Amino acid sequence: MSTDAAHETPPPSDSPAAPPCTLVIFGASGDLTKRLLMPALYNLSAGKLLSEDFAVIGVDHNDNTDEGWCKALSETMQSFTTDHTSEFHPDHIDATAWGFVRDRLHFRHGDFSDSATFRDLAGALTGNVVFYLAVSARFFGPIVEQLGAAGLLKQGDGAFRRVVVEKPFGSDLASAKALNATLLAQGDEGQFFRIDHFLGKETVQSILALRFANGLLEPVWRAEHVAAIEITAAETIGVEERGAFYEPTGALRDMVPNHLFQLLCMVAMEAPDSLAAEAIRDAKSRLLEAIRPVAPGDAVRGQYTAGTELGRAVIGYRAEPNVAEESRTETYVALKLTIDTPRWAGVPFYLRTGKRMTDRATEIAVHFRVPAHSPFPAAPGMMPDILRLRIDPEQGMSLGLNAKRPGPEMRLGRVVATFEYGDFFHETPSVGYETLLYDCMTGDATLFQRADGIEAGWAAVEPLLAAWRDAPVAFYAAGSDGPDEAAALLARDGHAWLPLGDA
Amino acid sequence: MSTDAAHETPPPSDSPAAPPCTLVIFGASGDLTKRLLMPALYNLSAGKLLSEDFAVIGVDHNDNTDEGWCKALSETMQSFTTDHTSEFHPDHIDATAWGFVRDRLHFRHGDFSDSATFRDLAGALTGNVVFYLAVSARFFGPIVEQLGAAGLLKQGDGAFRRVVVEKPFGSDLASAKALNATLLAQGDEGQFFRIDHFLGKETVQSILALRFANGLLEPVWRAEHVAAIEITAAETIGVEERGAFYEPTGALRDMVPNHLFQLLCMVAMEAPDSLAAEAIRDAKSRLLEAIRPVAPGDAVRGQYTAGTELGRAVIGYRAEPNVAEESRTETYVALKLTIDTPRWAGVPFYLRTGKRMTDRATEIAVHFRVPAHSPFPAAPGMMPDILRLRIDPEQGMSLGLNAKRPGPEMRLGRVVATFEYGDFFHETPSVGYETLLYDCMTGDATLFQRADGIEAGWAAVEPLLAAWRDAPVAFYAAGSDGPDEAAALLARDGHAWLPLGDA
Repeated sequence: MSTDAAHETPPPSDSPAAPPCTLVIFGASGDLTKRLLMPALYNLSAGKLLSEDFAVIGVDHNDNTDEGWCKALSETMQSFTTDHTSEFHPDHIDATAWGFVRDRLHFRHGDFSDSATFRDLAGALTGNVVFYLAVSARFFGPIVEQLGAAGLLKQGDGAFRRVVVEKPFGSDLASAKALNATLLAQGDEGQFFRIDHFLGKETVQSILALRFANGLLEPVWRAEHVAAIEITAAETIGVEERGAFYEPTGALRDMVPNHLFQLLCMVAMEAPDSLAAEAIRDAKSRLLEAIRPVAPGDAVRGQYTAGTELGRAVIGYRAEPNVAEESRTETYVALKLTIDTPRWAGVPFYLRTGKRMTDRATEIAVHFRVPAHSPFPAAPGMMPDILRLRIDPEQGMSLGLNAKRPGPEMRLGRVVATFEYGDFFHETPSVGYETLLYDCMTGDATLFQRADGIEAGWAAVEPLLAAWRDAPVAFYAAGSDGPDEAAALLARDGHAWLPLGDA
Repeated sequence: MSTDAAHETPPPSDSPAAPPCTLVIFGASGDLTKRLLMPALYNLSAGKLLSEDFAVIGVDHNDNTDEGWCKALSETMQSFTTDHTSEFHPDHIDATAWGFVRDRLHFRHGDFSDSATFRDLAGALTGNVVFYLAVSARFFGPIVEQLGAAGLLKQGDGAFRRVVVEKPFGSDLASAKALNATLLAQGDEGQFFRIDHFLGKETVQSILALRFANGLLEPVWRAEHVAAIEITAAETIGVEERGAFYEPTGALRDMVPNHLFQLLCMVAMEAPDSLAAEAIRDAKSRLLEAIRPVAPGDAVRGQYTAGTELGRAVIGYRAEPNVAEESRTETYVALKLTIDTPRWAGVPFYLRTGKRMTDRATEIAVHFRVPAHSPFPAAPGMMPDILRLRIDPEQGMSLGLNAKRPGPEMRLGRVVATFEYGDFFHETPSVGYETLLYDCMTGDATLFQRADGIEAGWAAVEPLLAAWRDAPVAFYAAGSDGPDEAAALLARDGHAWLPLGDA
C-alpha cells in the first residue's frame, strides 16, 4: 500500500475545475475515506479543481449524522498536521479549502445489501454521479447490482453515472470474469473505473516519454539489444495489522497480476498510437495478452521468518496477528516471464515482490547485451549496461556503463550516470488520489483498468494459483533479499538479481 | 598548450621499470625541458619506473656544465612548489626521487647544425638511446639528418635508437611529406615517435571503452541514429607571449589537422582490431583518409578583437606582442566535415577551436536523431538526445534526455544524467609527459603519430590553406562564442553549436 500512486502529481490549479458532480462514497466510515479520499478532496479544493456544484454523500452501515461525520473527518484532517507517519502531513489545514469540502458532506445510513438504501439514493440523486466503492471486495458485485436495479447507472441528458471499483478485482481468473460480467450487466465498460493506480499517471507517462521520445533509447529497447529485464517492488514493512486480509490473498494475488504487471506494461508494451486513454489501454491489453502463462517451475514463493527491519528485530509472518501458525501464504514472489511478441523474443522478464525485504524499492532494470564484438573482448570487468528506472522512493534514472579504469592496462570499471526528476522538475506533494478522483469526474480512464486487461493478468498467473494451492513455501529471514530459491531461479539462466537499495 | 595531454595518467608504480636507456635531449636549456621533461622524469623516478642504468645527456648551444645545468634544474624544480600557475606544483620535492634524476644529468655544449656535436655523441653513446627533439621545428629535419650521418640511428644487438619529434610536424601537406621523407631516409618508421598527445592515452582508451564496451551505446553510434557530431576545443586564454610563433601558424595549423582530428578519430573511427598501438593507428589512419577535403565554403576563420576573459578586459589579437597590425591570422576555426565511411554517411561533423572563447572546454557532443515515430509527435519540447563526452577541464559524460514534465499535459523537458571519472576512479596527478617518455622507452607507439596519419590530416585541410592565403578573417569579441559566420555555417543545416561551458 505504501507505494501506491507513488509520485502522482495532481492536476495543477490552472487546470479547469471538474464538472458538477455528486460523489457517493460507499464505506464512508472506513479508513480509505479518512486517510486518502478526504485529503485528496481537500487538495482538489485548494487547487480550485472542484465544481461549486460538487457534493459528497457518504454511505455506511453505522449510525451517524451529517454533523457527526463532518466533525469526525475535520478532526482527522487536523490530526494529520501532527501525524508524521501519515503520507499526508500538511503544516496546517487551510480553513477555506477544507470548509469548501466540509460544507458539502452529507452522511446517509444504509446497508450495502438493502435495496432501500439504493431506492433512497435514487430519489436524492440527479445529474452527474460518481459512486466510489471504498468497501471490502465482497461488496463490489452486490453494490453494482443494487445500483443497476435502482436505475442509478442509467445515463442520459448528458449526465454521467460512473463507478470506481477499488482493489482487489477478483481473486483469480474465474472470479474476475464473474465480477466483470456482473458489472457489464449493469452498465457499459466506459462507466466502470477499476483502480489500479500502483503507477500514477505521471509515472506511466514519464516512462513512456523516456522510451519513445529519446533517439538514444528507443532503438535499443528490444530483444536485439536487451538481455533481460528485472522488475522489483520491495517493501521493508511486514503484513502489520492486515493478517486477516493477507492470509487468503498472499503476495501473488496482492501484487502480481495487477501492480507488477502495470510496471511490466510500461516497460514492455508497444508504442501506443497516441496518449489517449484507450490507446494506452489497448497497448497494455495487447501486452498482457502476450504474457505466456507462468509455469510453476518458473516461479518461487517465499514467506518471511523472524529477522530485522532496517536493523530492528521483527517477528516472522506466522507470528503476526491473525495469521495461521502453519500458514503457507507467500509474502514474496519471484517469477520468470516470457512475453510472446517480436520485440521481446527470447528476453526473460524477472519479477519479484516481497514484504520485509532489505530495502524499499520499486524499480525496473533493463539489462543490455554486452557488445557482440569489441576490441577488448578479454578486458576484465565488462558488465552489461544497466538502465534502472527508479519509481519509488525517489523517481529517477541511473545508467551503469563500462568505462576504462585509469592505468596502463585496459581494465574496465563501472560508472553510473544518474538523474532524479526532483532535480529538474518541481512536484506538488499529494496523496495520489487527487488525480484518480479528478480523472474519474472528467472521464479520463488512463489510470484505470479495462476488463480485458484485468482478465489477461489473471490468466497469466492462473497456473500458479492452481499449483500453489497445496504447495509448501520457501522461507527467508526478514530483512533479507528473499529466499535462496529466487536466486537459483535466475542463476539457472546465468543471471542474478540486482542487490536491493543499490541504485 | 594548456589542454595538451589532458588527464594523462602515468604508469603506476607497480609497472615494470623501463629498460636501460640514455635520453638525449636536444634543447636542454629550453622551456620544455624545464617545465615538462624534468617534472616527468622526477615523477617516473618517484614511481621507480626508470632503470638504474638510465642517464640524461642534455645538448644545447649555450655554454654550461653538468654542475651548472643540474643546479639550474634543481632550482627550477624547487620553484614549482610555490608556483601555483604551474601545472606541476607538488608540496615538496622528494630528495631521493629528484636525486636519482639529478645524479644522472650530463650537459654537453653543441650546435645542432655542427656535425662535430653528433660525432662526439656517437663516441659517447652505446646501447639504447632516445633522442628527444625539444627544439624549434626548423631543426627537426637537420638534427635527424645529422643523427643518421653520424650512425646514431643504427640499431643492433637488441639495442634501440628512437627519436621523439615534437610539434608541429610540418605546416602543410608538402612540408609534412618532406619531413617524413627526411626522417624515413635515416631510419625506419618504428624509430620515429611523432608527438601529438592532445589526448592522453588514458582519454583515447576511455573513449574507445565507452564506445565499444557498452551494449547501449555501441549499436546507436552510427548514421542511422546520429544526426550530427560537434567537436570543440575552446580556450579562454589569448595568444599571450606566443605571437611570433602564432602569426605564421594560426588556429587551423595549430589545432585542426593534429589535435581536433585526434578527437575526431576517437569518436568516429571503426573499432580497432585490438588495443595494440598499430591496430589503433591503422583505424585512425583509415578514418583520417576518409575525411573529404574541406571545401572553403564549409569553413570559417575568425580573429578575436578586444573583449573580456572571464570578466576581465583584454586586448584584441592585433594588439598582442609580435602580431602584425593588419594581421589576418585566424585565432578561431569552425569547419563542417564529411566522413566518407558507411558508418557516417550523411552525418555532418562540426569542429571548432578558438582562443579567447567564453569558456575553456574540450568536448565531443553526439546529437542523436529524434525518434522517427512517437506517440507524442506534437509534444512540445522534444529535443535530440545529446551525449557529451567532456575531456577538459573535467573528464566525464553527460547525457541529455527528454522526460515528461509533471502535470496533466504531455510536455517534455530536459533531464541530464551525468558522471565524472573522478567520482569513480582515482587519478594520479602528472604533467602528461611521464607516459610519453615511458612509452617511448618501452616502445609503445599508441600516443604517437604515424607518417600516413599526419599526411592524411594535412591533406584534408589543404584546400583551406590555399584558399585562406589571401582571404579576410571574420572577427569576434574576446569572451564570446566565436564569429557570427560560425553560427551561420551550422544554421544552414538547421543546427546550432551548443553553448560553451554548459555541459
